[in-house]
Amino acid sequence: MTEPAIKYHLIKKEKHTGARLGEIITPHGTFPTPMFMPVGTQASVKSLAPEELDAMGANIILSNTYHLWLRPGEEIVKEAGGLHKFMNWNKGILTDSGGFQVFSLAKMRDITEEGVHFRSHLSGEKLFLSPEKAIQIENALGADIMMSFDECPPFFESYDYIKKSVERTSRWAERGLKAHQNAEKQGLFGIVQGGGHKELRAQSAHDLVSMDFPGYSIGGLSVGESKSEMNHVLSFTTPMLPENKPRYLMGVGSADALIDGVIRGIDMFDCVLPTRIARNGSCMTSHGRLVVKNAVYAHDFRPIDDNCNCYTCRNFSRAYIRHLIKADETFGLRLTSYHNLYFLIHLMQQVRQAIMDDNLLEFRENFFEEYGFNSENSRNF
Amino acid sequence: MTEPAIKYHLIKKEKHTGARLGEIITPHGTFPTPMFMPVGTQASVKSLAPEELDAMGANIILSNTYHLWLRPGEEIVKEAGGLHKFMNWNKGILTDSGGFQVFSLAKMRDITEEGVHFRSHLSGEKLFLSPEKAIQIENALGADIMMSFDECPPFFESYDYIKKSVERTSRWAERGLKAHQNAEKQGLFGIVQGGGHKELRAQSAHDLVSMDFPGYSIGGLSVGESKSEMNHVLSFTTPMLPENKPRYLMGVGSADALIDGVIRGIDMFDCVLPTRIARNGSCMTSHGRLVVKNAVYAHDFRPIDDNCNCYTCRNFSRAYIRHLIKADETFGLRLTSYHNLYFLIHLMQQVRQAIMDDNLLEFRENFFEEYGFNSENSRNF
Ligand SMILES: [Zn+2]
Ligand SMILES: [Zn+2]
Repeated sequence: MTEPAIKYHLIKKEKHTGARLGEIITPHGTFPTPMFMPVGTQASVKSLAPEELDAMGANIILSNTYHLWLRPGEEIVKEAGGLHKFMNWNKGILTDSGGFQVFSLAKMRDITEEGVHFRSHLSGEKLFLSPEKAIQIENALGADIMMSFDECPPFFESYDYIKKSVERTSRWAERGLKAHQNAEKQGLFGIVQGGGHKELRAQSAHDLVSMDFPGYSIGGLSVGESKSEMNHVLSFTTPMLPENKPRYLMGVGSADALIDGVIRGIDMFDCVLPTRIARNGSCMTSHGRLVVKNAVYAHDFRPIDDNCNCYTCRNFSRAYIRHLIKADETFGLRLTSYHNLYFLIHLMQQVRQAIMDDNLLEFRENFFEEYGFNSENSRNF
Repeated sequence: MTEPAIKYHLIKKEKHTGARLGEIITPHGTFPTPMFMPVGTQASVKSLAPEELDAMGANIILSNTYHLWLRPGEEIVKEAGGLHKFMNWNKGILTDSGGFQVFSLAKMRDITEEGVHFRSHLSGEKLFLSPEKAIQIENALGADIMMSFDECPPFFESYDYIKKSVERTSRWAERGLKAHQNAEKQGLFGIVQGGGHKELRAQSAHDLVSMDFPGYSIGGLSVGESKSEMNHVLSFTTPMLPENKPRYLMGVGSADALIDGVIRGIDMFDCVLPTRIARNGSCMTSHGRLVVKNAVYAHDFRPIDDNCNCYTCRNFSRAYIRHLIKADETFGLRLTSYHNLYFLIHLMQQVRQAIMDDNLLEFRENFFEEYGFNSENSRNF
């Protein structure tokens, strides 16, 4: 039997919370966890160059199977020598399975045991995605980490619906595992579903763990439920997963949720949030959210965040960035995107240090207070 | 009397053409000429960072007085410490006078001896620009090189109209010179107008040279006339200008026009062309124009230009760049913008070498042949 492509090494657990300091070992490098992974939906983290992602400390980036399947098509990526070569990124890449986009973007979907029939959100063309097809596309893309094809049901769906969905997702995971062609170079993760129900999360985790994936994702969260509901689900779900495998919470990118996820045993996060809000001129800062395009910053020559050492904050003022965004200059969103991603990556560095120092709860308290998460009108990010 | 802010040092003239190799001495550095200057209309060369412009060999960049006056306003730029600090660019900056934009963009303009009344193209607000006002804005912006406020009449206007316009432009130049507050740090250039008429160009040049500007621009070209008409005007206009001052041909950025301008004694060029066409996926290459978004490049894993050593060509394929542009990813236009600007800057390096080697006509012939400028269906760029 060959070595799995993805391994996890637990270095220590924080004394008070059990938060995990570790490292994930991939074919493109070994990287410290907990980590935040920037999203490059269409083989590009919006507006940024690979060298910039490397410079800010990004180690794994995410790309989307559904989008790349539709455009440019996985065969072109494969012909290029895989995603790493196509986009000139030599560190880690993770691809999702396309399932989430099929359920959120595509039109007229029809779910069967075999897979999902739907229409392209771009062309309206009829398409079919199954566990086998998703894995075949992910194998062609060649990311270090691949996701199983799953259904991500609404959090507040009925128990019966979610139970049936979880059972099908387990069968799909097994079919995907069989279809996977490249286990020595690409690690396939299972995705634990089950909505807010402990028994269903347990059933999902049990099914997937028995298939011995090299890592486990937690899906079906950050889809409309409250933060406390999400934290509650994490609290009972991560203990169902093996300690010697990485745990990835999908689609979560607000600073508070990252810290609270780490406290509940999560190792990996991804989200479009930092780059999406950047395009509106919204920035995450150590003092909370700052909407740099607001008029109050027109004459403000301070950096976005006086505690930040990123390229943007070292070189450019709020007044300049505001001007660029107001004037529709794309360099403005490069600067805010860079800052926001750096902010979350740097936050994870601080979190790792706090685990090392066994003071993660104190770090959380100070960070939440300064960010404004403790105030009554606290915003989502 | 203080030293002028801008000086020119003629190093040599090419044996067969008289093309000038020299350097322009500015408060932010001494740079070799002939040179191409990228345009950063709104204090940003579209999509690119200052470090990237530096890395590609850009030495002077251009910014637009009219646009910065309207947004963010020259007072904010002044408060920031001037354009260099505002946009974090420590090499040369040149600002135009706003005249060209008033005549091309603004609505309902009304030209009087005093100046021009018009409406903002953004807000519709009534505005007034005069030689004194333009210089006051340019002084606040703080560029190394400033332009006089001029009228740029259509090339094919009547002799009588252009004669009156030239005379007014001379009076405006004199008023601007008097209004200029900062001659030891900012060099103000005069702009030679006169359409296609040798006598009017001579009158304009004579008037301006008598005012002893530290440099001279040639305006009113590349506004619809043919390349041969432009070259004809240059042939008789540059000899009217002093040898010890730099000569700047405004708004010209196609490779053939750059080479032909240098042959006729031009030292400096600027144009939005390379960045504007980049946004449509059009690239200048050593083998001619290449529209990278075309379907034929979908599986083409070669660089945009196999003779180019720029960041884009060293790292990314036509297939990837095509994908980015088709998918509306702004990183795609970063890559094409970078390449096109590098192409023209590198072309000017080759032109300087050809002047050094006294083989500029041979260089021109080879370049034109390879680019396709000699073919019947030759495109403008
Ligand atoms: Zn920053
Ligand atoms: Zn290139």
